[in-house]
Amino acid sequence: MSEDDRSQRHNQRMQRQKKLVDERIAEASTEKGVVVVHTGNGKGKSTAGFGMLARALGHGMQAGVVQFIKGSFSTGEEAFFRRFPEVSYHVMGEGYTWDTQNLEQDIATAGKAWDQARQFLEDPSVDLVVLDELNIALKFKYIPVQEVLDALSKRPKMQHVVITGRGALQELIDVADTVSEHREIKHAFHAGITAQKGVEL
Amino acid sequence: MSEDDRSQRHNQRMQRQKKLVDERIAEASTEKGVVVVHTGNGKGKSTAGFGMLARALGHGMQAGVVQFIKGSFSTGEEAFFRRFPEVSYHVMGEGYTWDTQNLEQDIATAGKAWDQARQFLEDPSVDLVVLDELNIALKFKYIPVQEVLDALSKRPKMQHVVITGRGALQELIDVADTVSEHREIKHAFHAGITAQKGVEL
Repeated sequence: MSEDDRSQRHNQRMQRQKKLVDERIAEASTEKGVVVVHTGNGKGKSTAGFGMLARALGHGMQAGVVQFIKGSFSTGEEAFFRRFPEVSYHVMGEGYTWDTQNLEQDIATAGKAWDQARQFLEDPSVDLVVLDELNIALKFKYIPVQEVLDALSKRPKMQHVVITGRGALQELIDVADTVSEHREIKHAFHAGITAQKGVEL
Repeated sequence: MSEDDRSQRHNQRMQRQKKLVDERIAEASTEKGVVVVHTGNGKGKSTAGFGMLARALGHGMQAGVVQFIKGSFSTGEEAFFRRFPEVSYHVMGEGYTWDTQNLEQDIATAGKAWDQARQFLEDPSVDLVVLDELNIALKFKYIPVQEVLDALSKRPKMQHVVITGRGALQELIDVADTVSEHREIKHAFHAGITAQKGVEL
């Protein structure tokens, strides 16, 4: 195929693509707060949540963050986002549940985190609520899923919520607007590479 | 099952889990820069890249960003991350390829973006390189994949790179340390909800 042919075929394909994209954009016109869920076993769930937070700050929005499970290390994103007065940042977990090995303590900790989350979900001045690793707390039944569904449905109309963690419950997927499953294709950890600052930490 | 039984079974399960996690952490001891690829058709690829950027800034790292395809709107993350002197931010694309409809122009634009990316990949003072939507430019053959593989393999030993965009080439997946595929389970757009500030924008 000559360069001219390649160029012409490319332009025709792109014209069809542009028509399609323009039509879809014209159809999508509802403005409302959305619930975004990042789940699956792959990398990038919490990271995508914190990327949304950065994006929201770029628009001058106010945000509330609850980390339901704190890792065993302090994380770069916490150090970073605590700098901003627009972000109310709460780390409520006390290590992964396999570190605490205490069911009662885990339930109590999750309950406190959920109380904070509920306050954000009732507050119209909070434009974005990040509920990091909430899925884990729901999966282990530390928090009743019905309470979460109720709070989501009653929240301020324009408020966005992002919920992360593997094993998202079907009930949550059903009410979410956007759900992305992150599948692990490969992970450096399995090749013996430790968690790195700026990547996992 | 009584509460005591539930508690005991939980603790046993968590002890096994902790043993497993501890063993895996002990095994993973190599310190090196990693290449992370976020691909797939689901939400959260670029967002995860920008979440890594936030994390890196939390550790006081220096970062270089090249956006290979600029959306038709200005984005929240650009407004946000341009505030930081630790970030060298370059938006090189000129709209999605179905907007420009000009193959020669797209190739020239991608080439300029790649020149900037290559400078970052040769600079040991850059701790993290974010190559947003590079996968698209590779898929359309705007940039020869072999050039990218060469530059990645010769980069400073401790430098991290995150590459985003759907349709990651197998050659890139082969050399990456961590690859996550974001699968779209559902998307607000299909329910007629327009792109929202702080979510897509």
